[in-house]
Amino acid sequence: MNKHPVILQIEAADKAIVAEDFNTLLNIYTDDAILVVAPGKNAVGKKEILKAFKDIAVYFKNGLKVEQSGMEVLVSGDTALVLANTVLSAPNLPITVRKATYVFNQSANGIWRCSIDNSYGHEVIGV
Amino acid sequence: MNKHPVILQIEAADKAIVAEDFNTLLNIYTDDAILVVAPGKNAVGKKEILKAFKDIAVYFKNGLKVEQSGMEVLVSGDTALVLANTVLSAPNLPITVRKATYVFNQSANGIWRCSIDNSYGHEVIGV
Repeated sequence: MNKHPVILQIEAADKAIVAEDFNTLLNIYTDDAILVVAPGKNAVGKKEILKAFKDIAVYFKNGLKVEQSGMEVLVSGDTALVLANTVLSAPNLPITVRKATYVFNQSANGIWRCSIDNSYGHEVIGV
Repeated sequence: MNKHPVILQIEAADKAIVAEDFNTLLNIYTDDAILVVAPGKNAVGKKEILKAFKDIAVYFKNGLKVEQSGMEVLVSGDTALVLANTVLSAPNLPITVRKATYVFNQSANGIWRCSIDNSYGHEVIGV
């Protein structure tokens, strides 16, 4: 079965994070996307998201690895919810699995982009 | 702080489920909404969702209780992701907490409706 375009976008984003290819990475987000940087702390819009990813790269000593060990995509019209087991590691981060939740929206020209990036899943509740 | 309209919709949906008020309940969903009935089993569109809720009501001996013990809403434009601790019980179901994920979309006239209802959260992965 062919992979859903949303899966391909997530795989491209993971590669771009590892490569610190921020141009490619930012193009996978919608203009008004929200990224949960930490529970209770969000980056909103491409400018804040770019800054967040640059800070994250430095924080993890330019050695952040990210991949998905399982994903499920639920689609309704031009909206998709992704449940993912996101595996992170870095020189200063032991292998960590997060129960991540991502929302993608399909643009008029058919491209799926991430509008809500919450790798912390339910950890954001009540923070 | 005023509750986000999405929170009010979820509270209304919970009351409608308990009251088996399916007209009110269905009006909270978009026309092409997807409801995870069980991991790997989805109801798509209002007709299938109505049938699923009727079956669920009977399955739980017309005694299903549902409420949220914690919610967080992340909004990007007309799309919202809700992380919720959903508490269920019934005459034949001990108190059960699910790490639920809901996606809402705002219509042109400002109403937020549920497009993706996945009370099972990450349990849907790999099923």
